Amino acid sequence: MTTSREIRLKSRPVGVPTQADFELATVEVAAPGPGEVQVKNLWMSVDPYMRGRMYDRASYVPPFELGKALQGGAIGQIVASNDPEFAVGDIVNSMFGWREVFNVSPAAIKAAGGAMGALTKIDTHGLPPQAFLGILGMPGMTAYAGLLRVAALKDGDVVFVSAAAGAVGSVVCQIAKLKGHTVIGSAGGPEKVAFLKSIGVDHVIDYKATPDVVAELAKVAPKGIDVYFENVGGVHLEAAINSARPFARFALCGMISQYNETGKPVGPSNIIQAVGKSLRMEGFIVSNHYDLYPAFARDMAEWIKAGKLTWKETVEDGIARAPDAFIKLFAGENLGKMLVKLG
Amino acid sequence: MTTSREIRLKSRPVGVPTQADFELATVEVAAPGPGEVQVKNLWMSVDPYMRGRMYDRASYVPPFELGKALQGGAIGQIVASNDPEFAVGDIVNSMFGWREVFNVSPAAIKAAGGAMGALTKIDTHGLPPQAFLGILGMPGMTAYAGLLRVAALKDGDVVFVSAAAGAVGSVVCQIAKLKGHTVIGSAGGPEKVAFLKSIGVDHVIDYKATPDVVAELAKVAPKGIDVYFENVGGVHLEAAINSARPFARFALCGMISQYNETGKPVGPSNIIQAVGKSLRMEGFIVSNHYDLYPAFARDMAEWIKAGKLTWKETVEDGIARAPDAFIKLFAGENLGKMLVKLG
Repeated sequence: MTTSREIRLKSRPVGVPTQADFELATVEVAAPGPGEVQVKNLWMSVDPYMRGRMYDRASYVPPFELGKALQGGAIGQIVASNDPEFAVGDIVNSMFGWREVFNVSPAAIKAAGGAMGALTKIDTHGLPPQAFLGILGMPGMTAYAGLLRVAALKDGDVVFVSAAAGAVGSVVCQIAKLKGHTVIGSAGGPEKVAFLKSIGVDHVIDYKATPDVVAELAKVAPKGIDVYFENVGGVHLEAAINSARPFARFALCGMISQYNETGKPVGPSNIIQAVGKSLRMEGFIVSNHYDLYPAFARDMAEWIKAGKLTWKETVEDGIARAPDAFIKLFAGENLGKMLVKLG
Repeated sequence: MTTSREIRLKSRPVGVPTQADFELATVEVAAPGPGEVQVKNLWMSVDPYMRGRMYDRASYVPPFELGKALQGGAIGQIVASNDPEFAVGDIVNSMFGWREVFNVSPAAIKAAGGAMGALTKIDTHGLPPQAFLGILGMPGMTAYAGLLRVAALKDGDVVFVSAAAGAVGSVVCQIAKLKGHTVIGSAGGPEKVAFLKSIGVDHVIDYKATPDVVAELAKVAPKGIDVYFENVGGVHLEAAINSARPFARFALCGMISQYNETGKPVGPSNIIQAVGKSLRMEGFIVSNHYDLYPAFARDMAEWIKAGKLTWKETVEDGIARAPDAFIKLFAGENLGKMLVKLG
């Protein structure tokens, strides 16, 4: 028997989530049964999209269940194994989420065909394992697919990225830069601005220090933008539409400014410009683009080896801090990937 | 010397255009000079997009000039010709617009490369010449390109069309129907509803009689929509986003509800759904799709011959009525194509 702590969803948040919406529980985990492995999580991920799963509504993933441990990406290590394909010490990626230790039967999951439930062995190639929750994991893949496929980046494009210092945005900025584009990033606060400048972003908009994001974008992109990578919504979307050149393409990845909205959100008042400018605004979910994974893995490895990609982490320590880590996302308190260190 | 009347833009409208924004002028037109032809317009078109050219702002077409005759599609007849390619009696399509008689040198236009200025001879194939301002002209082409290319209509799609009884919308509905789709159309008032039912539209929403277009669309399309052909904006766009199935495609053709807006328009409050549903919303301008013209002409001829396409006209008589005809567009007083009969 092993003791494991986990974070459960206690109540569905109204507005910005609070500590009271979560509860920490302790459970006993038996030795793994036949065909099972036992995984001790080392790192877990909190991501903005999880807010959507806290609502009780139909969406592209089912809602989280009240009273149960939250699900999400985690990197762990095999501590006991009854599956010949997994050895003690192996590093694994999973979606079982907000818990310290769990048992799972990899073969049973595979038989059920559940991609969300898969346990995947990782060769870290000497990189820190938590990078596979960030730049080399779902957020990196989101950046890659959104910029290169959904927004269909092409030579000469001027690229605008909101939440540019986040786990996804910072990868978008760097891929666009290493491909030779002019990049404009928006982020809040001097630390993020400095980071974005350090990775070569051409113009940084500190939206917290800017009274008018629409005017500011128009100023720093006098000839307009061709690609917008949307993470924020609200005034950022309005600014992007206003500055869009004809045939601009928007990859709509998320709208974090609206995730906790309790009233009626404000839509982009200038959406009519999409007609005259022949804009294409396209939403996407990374799970529909995993056919790009081999290309992603190859390109990212090459770019990291060449020193063209870097990343930041914001780390909270211990599973009890996971709700805090999650809540901080919505105040923009993370620089780069927000992680919880469990190991 | 011939006398010609023309409608000039007297002032840039604020909000809904009024008679005072236009003036009727009479000019003398000389006999056509060397290489010129003289055209007597028989029919002229008023179209919602013209409202955009009344603002003094950069757009995909230059603004109309104050004190000059407005430009727009017209069908005329050659009454005198010094160009061997045009004979007296020929029916021609042009974009010189809101005037009764004009001289033009077809060769000089061609040399200047101006598509907007082109004079095109029309073989009407026995159809009424004004059909080439509607179903067989720019509005028909807009419907064809928007539905088949921009929205990429595919088998099984449920199609929603706003301003469904208009010059563009009614063609969209009929093309979707003849291809076997379920079609939902929105229009205002019993006459338009009856027309849409007569052309086979499966569900008609009378938005003027419906307190909640969002709820009504959800009711008549319980499984959702896959394609939205956007002509109206506002609550219609909101309804379409709300009812969109995953991977739905929106062809953004126009947003007539916003053309006369003097305050800040209201954007779609639910645009965040575009992310989770992987929606594609794409604006377009028909002039970028004229490579489809041969396919359009062939398909439309076949469908009309087979009795699969019909159309309606709303006609105002005489050039003095052109401002009225234009203003009526924004009150939805046209069923099908709004035309001004000059000949």
